[in-house]
Amino acid sequence: MRADAFRLPMAHPSDVSALEALVVQGSVAADSIVAIIGKTEGNGGVNDFTRGYFTQTLMGMLARHLGEPARLLLERIPCVLSGGTEGVLSPHYVVLTRTGESKREPGKTASLAVGTAMSHPVSPEDIGRSAHIHGVATAVRAAMHDARIDAARDVHFVQIKCPCITAARAEAAKARGKTVITSDSNRSMAIARAAGALGVALALGELEQPFDGEPALLQNFSLYSTRASVSSGIEVDRNEVIVLGNSRYWSGPLQIAHRPMRDALDIGAIVDVLHDLGIGALPQVGAEDRSRLRAVLVKCEPDRRGHIRGHRHTMLDDTDINAQRHVRGAVGGLVAGVVGDTRIFISGGAEHQGPDGGGLIAVIAQIASVG
Amino acid sequence: MRADAFRLPMAHPSDVSALEALVVQGSVAADSIVAIIGKTEGNGGVNDFTRGYFTQTLMGMLARHLGEPARLLLERIPCVLSGGTEGVLSPHYVVLTRTGESKREPGKTASLAVGTAMSHPVSPEDIGRSAHIHGVATAVRAAMHDARIDAARDVHFVQIKCPCITAARAEAAKARGKTVITSDSNRSMAIARAAGALGVALALGELEQPFDGEPALLQNFSLYSTRASVSSGIEVDRNEVIVLGNSRYWSGPLQIAHRPMRDALDIGAIVDVLHDLGIGALPQVGAEDRSRLRAVLVKCEPDRRGHIRGHRHTMLDDTDINAQRHVRGAVGGLVAGVVGDTRIFISGGAEHQGPDGGGLIAVIAQIASVG
Amino acid sequence: MRADAFRLPMAHPSDVSALEALVVQGSVAADSIVAIIGKTEGNGGVNDFTRGYFTQTLMGMLARHLGEPARLLLERIPCVLSGGTEGVLSPHYVVLTRTGESKREPGKTASLAVGTAMSHPVSPEDIGRSAHIHGVATAVRAAMHDARIDAARDVHFVQIKCPCITAARAEAAKARGKTVITSDSNRSMAIARAAGALGVALALGELEQPFDGEPALLQNFSLYSTRASVSSGIEVDRNEVIVLGNSRYWSGPLQIAHRPMRDALDIGAIVDVLHDLGIGALPQVGAEDRSRLRAVLVKCEPDRRGHIRGHRHTMLDDTDINAQRHVRGAVGGLVAGVVGDTRIFISGGAEHQGPDGGGLIAVIAQIASVG
Amino acid sequence: MRADAFRLPMAHPSDVSALEALVVQGSVAADSIVAIIGKTEGNGGVNDFTRGYFTQTLMGMLARHLGEPARLLLERIPCVLSGGTEGVLSPHYVVLTRTGESKREPGKTASLAVGTAMSHPVSPEDIGRSAHIHGVATAVRAAMHDARIDAARDVHFVQIKCPCITAARAEAAKARGKTVITSDSNRSMAIARAAGALGVALALGELEQPFDGEPALLQNFSLYSTRASVSSGIEVDRNEVIVLGNSRYWSGPLQIAHRPMRDALDIGAIVDVLHDLGIGALPQVGAEDRSRLRAVLVKCEPDRRGHIRGHRHTMLDDTDINAQRHVRGAVGGLVAGVVGDTRIFISGGAEHQGPDGGGLIAVIAQIASVG
Repeated sequence: MRADAFRLPMAHPSDVSALEALVVQGSVAADSIVAIIGKTEGNGGVNDFTRGYFTQTLMGMLARHLGEPARLLLERIPCVLSGGTEGVLSPHYVVLTRTGESKREPGKTASLAVGTAMSHPVSPEDIGRSAHIHGVATAVRAAMHDARIDAARDVHFVQIKCPCITAARAEAAKARGKTVITSDSNRSMAIARAAGALGVALALGELEQPFDGEPALLQNFSLYSTRASVSSGIEVDRNEVIVLGNSRYWSGPLQIAHRPMRDALDIGAIVDVLHDLGIGALPQVGAEDRSRLRAVLVKCEPDRRGHIRGHRHTMLDDTDINAQRHVRGAVGGLVAGVVGDTRIFISGGAEHQGPDGGGLIAVIAQIASVG
Repeated sequence: MRADAFRLPMAHPSDVSALEALVVQGSVAADSIVAIIGKTEGNGGVNDFTRGYFTQTLMGMLARHLGEPARLLLERIPCVLSGGTEGVLSPHYVVLTRTGESKREPGKTASLAVGTAMSHPVSPEDIGRSAHIHGVATAVRAAMHDARIDAARDVHFVQIKCPCITAARAEAAKARGKTVITSDSNRSMAIARAAGALGVALALGELEQPFDGEPALLQNFSLYSTRASVSSGIEVDRNEVIVLGNSRYWSGPLQIAHRPMRDALDIGAIVDVLHDLGIGALPQVGAEDRSRLRAVLVKCEPDRRGHIRGHRHTMLDDTDINAQRHVRGAVGGLVAGVVGDTRIFISGGAEHQGPDGGGLIAVIAQIASVG
Repeated sequence: MRADAFRLPMAHPSDVSALEALVVQGSVAADSIVAIIGKTEGNGGVNDFTRGYFTQTLMGMLARHLGEPARLLLERIPCVLSGGTEGVLSPHYVVLTRTGESKREPGKTASLAVGTAMSHPVSPEDIGRSAHIHGVATAVRAAMHDARIDAARDVHFVQIKCPCITAARAEAAKARGKTVITSDSNRSMAIARAAGALGVALALGELEQPFDGEPALLQNFSLYSTRASVSSGIEVDRNEVIVLGNSRYWSGPLQIAHRPMRDALDIGAIVDVLHDLGIGALPQVGAEDRSRLRAVLVKCEPDRRGHIRGHRHTMLDDTDINAQRHVRGAVGGLVAGVVGDTRIFISGGAEHQGPDGGGLIAVIAQIASVG
Repeated sequence: MRADAFRLPMAHPSDVSALEALVVQGSVAADSIVAIIGKTEGNGGVNDFTRGYFTQTLMGMLARHLGEPARLLLERIPCVLSGGTEGVLSPHYVVLTRTGESKREPGKTASLAVGTAMSHPVSPEDIGRSAHIHGVATAVRAAMHDARIDAARDVHFVQIKCPCITAARAEAAKARGKTVITSDSNRSMAIARAAGALGVALALGELEQPFDGEPALLQNFSLYSTRASVSSGIEVDRNEVIVLGNSRYWSGPLQIAHRPMRDALDIGAIVDVLHDLGIGALPQVGAEDRSRLRAVLVKCEPDRRGHIRGHRHTMLDDTDINAQRHVRGAVGGLVAGVVGDTRIFISGGAEHQGPDGGGLIAVIAQIASVG
């Protein structure tokens, strides 16, 4: 069983020509695609429609090649997009594929392993509550099983997409005599991301037991996962999970590593995660090593205390530019500078995803000896 | 003769309390202040009034302490502000002071030297033309003389503020039977910046002789200065010049170095300029060295060809966020990450100021042996 | 022959459910649809992808119902979208349909007539030049013929979408030994819109003969059409034309009227165009009359001289919000207030489309006696 | 006693030359100025510094002419600025003056009356609570007394500026063993505005007695004042009040009227308030009547339910442009169109200030017979 990752450019949010070319020429079998993670050039906010536009275009193209309705593909293949290519960032997407059979016995070296899972639909009244945390944890364990990863320490990145509370969902809950945790949909997104992150932390053993669950959400930021990347949106009604790790049951050419970032200036974490994969970056990754890189995945946030290492920042009080856009541009510029490449997947809203005010970075690269 | 540099925080654009405290407690003599370079938290565009607000507040405060009208201070002390603290950047200002007498004979080591000059008013019809280029060159040479810097190679950073063409100025020129190079004031700012940059390049011997002058402006981007940082605005009618370099006639505790940046990812230039000052940054400047830093000055621009190292960026086509804001946030994030400090002076609009698509970086730091 | 217009809401840019419901229930025959004009909730600029997203979704839906490839529908059915629902404006689209046979003889009353035309592809070297103006004029005459409108005075609104110059198109022209009028794509859009507008003016007899053609573009703003609404984009390679007027060969329930707007405050024009259709608006259209309205179509622009009736506006110098967004919000608020309805199609970039600094308004409504 | 109002242009936020010219030529006595209400061209948000810049410049100028420290003027003369000149709006300020002695006996006709008051500093723990509501009511009554207005029905516009909760203020309260209603400073501004509005309503008898006070704030939007315009900011520590009404003890040439606006399309309210002053506007105020206008004051808000008269708006979900900027541009465009003048004072954040989703309008004009 072999996982591969193809990092492809898009000329605009409805451009999937790079993937279609690979499918047509046989480099990628359409039915081997198990997940997509990408960045589109919208504003990354509630009214960013570039994510939906790309997804519609992609699923339409795959539907033609697979002879399967786009609607079903949407339920089967997680397509996680982050809007916003601020600063130097380049719109792109990473296609994750899975081919061949699993090894019967574990091999000597571990390779990139990919697993996915979909939970049952989450009831509106459960969103952002303990049941949500535990539901995510269960789905993460299922995705680990799907990826044939036994040990939590071998998981390096978990991408979650989970539902939020809309006006309609709040009404539906009320009609059943239930109450929702908040009827403010923006706040429900933040709480849902928090629940997703602590669900990952729970599944990966990153929390002391027992932990206080729901009361910790958006309150106790000393609790976090160093491997969770969570988004929340109205377009899903269940938790979608992509688990990326290394496993000796897999035999592909890639590996993954990760590091927490303690703040938006934590260049050390970037250098370290590359070093974990045998890649030097002092100060910048060289051309040869750079050709081994297949994905750089980052989570970050504007420090909620209003300063970074003692100096005031202005991201949170800017009426003109959203704070998440600010921080993606800055941290994206830093990571791109170290890597020497602007194709960085970087996403804001990092509640409980890495240290407070920081975030995390994961990198997929070709194994040195293979390259 | 001794130059010093004080890097001070501002809580908002009318906060000069940090400088006033130094003046009151006697750490800075108000009459020793020769120039200010700073970043305020506006949008950096035509309708950024934070620069004027800070200047008015600063000059009002100095006027009280010096017993000299603010109007006269404005004509004597260049106050160059760049708006826009995108991403992690922190609003701050660097106060440059000059105390004592010049040495009669050059000493063994060179120290930071500061010189300023004001040209005669520039006629509207000359703005962005060969006369403008030569006028800036003359003023730069005067500021070098003021700084007692003999050799062009000892100049490391030249900050210019020069006038642009407004509707009123175009009318005035017309009334005298003259024509202006453009009546589009935004375009006139870009041409004025270009003329300023090539004026610096001319004064510093960075151009092959003879060079074609006016036709090169905004056309031949292979011509540039690696030490020019130019802004243009309606608020000045003459060229204001600040020259920063090292000179053996000065005996202060600081030195300056600079490097061109070839593009927005050129982390090597950042590491190199720090190394020039004996400061290691692999990957980040340590706490002790960081305390030696007094100013980090950067010029950058969104690559006009629409891609960086082969990958598309989206800065130039964004209707929501100005391209200069995008690039300041990204390059600012990179420099701040290497330095470990968010107080970076960074300015866009880098026509002919460093390589096309790149820019330059200069750093002022305490001399190692002194520190 | 009967033209109808359906004004439909969209919940987001990929929501065509309102039209699909009408198709499914038989209220609209899919093959009767001849044009769509709508407003989507993007930023209206170069990086507004909501227009493409809506078009892709709409054509996909119609393709399913018509059994015809979306690609062919795109070439046959003009779908003109303006991005930007600033202020009170509501995302919506107007579907124009055409059913039945033309009358042999003109009837007593004139009804709404709809005609469309597509020109041949415009060579890049012709864009924004006299050939472009004349090409548009020819296409407008073809669309008038298609609409069976004989007299120019019976035309009340002409929507044009015409190509602009992209880097690739400029290269292609160069390879053939041709030069393009500008290689700045934003400027080429403005010139193309200007050429489109004067092409309409030429076809409708609104210009004195002979007129100076290309030199007038973006220069002589005393030349304009009071009935042209032009957009320009990279997604088309030819001139697409929708002509709306009244004709006695048609027998539907609708009529159209139009008025030039002299500036952004010209409430008189709004009241007058409604009065032309027998609708009172002093100060606001009443509920009954409002139910007769089927489309309100507006063109406007921020006055390039920087003031409106003697007072300074700040639209042109705002680095945070694009000037077209500003003016759409303001004029949209005014028109919506008079009409009592926020479903206003309003588009910026009104070069030569109505008086300089103003624009125009057209309204489609049910004929009073019919209602 | 005579109140006058001077509506003056500003070329930028530090331009007070129009007022200084009136002072120098003797048309306005500097010591007659009792309040200023104006619009500056910032973004109207937390990081809008144009308000402070204008105030600093204005008070500096008045200090020179009055020989009184600017600091004291700030405590004596309310200067209420709203940032944001979206769309057609023109930056301007209205200077309110008061000259002569009060009449002993009321005259036959009522004239514009102006009164001001400053409350004691509001404790942080009281902000947004019942004590705040009552404190504002008391200050409004004091300002009515200052204006010699006896009857609440003669009050037509009350401008309030009240403090919000900052991190520092919350700490201070905590240190005294008190709790604040919220530590989110943005939310505290909204609650403070709500308390200010209901304080005005209480003073003007617009609330049924007894009313539930604090629990109504931001909850029960059926409670409101039709004459309150409230802003909240960190720059004040007490409630500043300007009361405008008509009184027979005054003898000036001006009068004021007001109307609630039921939503952002309520053109009827605009026409009605003009009619109250004998000014026709069908559809637009004529040149002669327009010369009688001295101030147009508007409060508005984006409907929190997401639709206006049944149609969806997109203001609340826009990540690029703040919702208050959207609505100011739209309603400003409507009012300016009816009035035929773009100098409209318009402010967002209209919680409990007019009907939910609407707001209010007040107009100061020369009395017809006097004109």
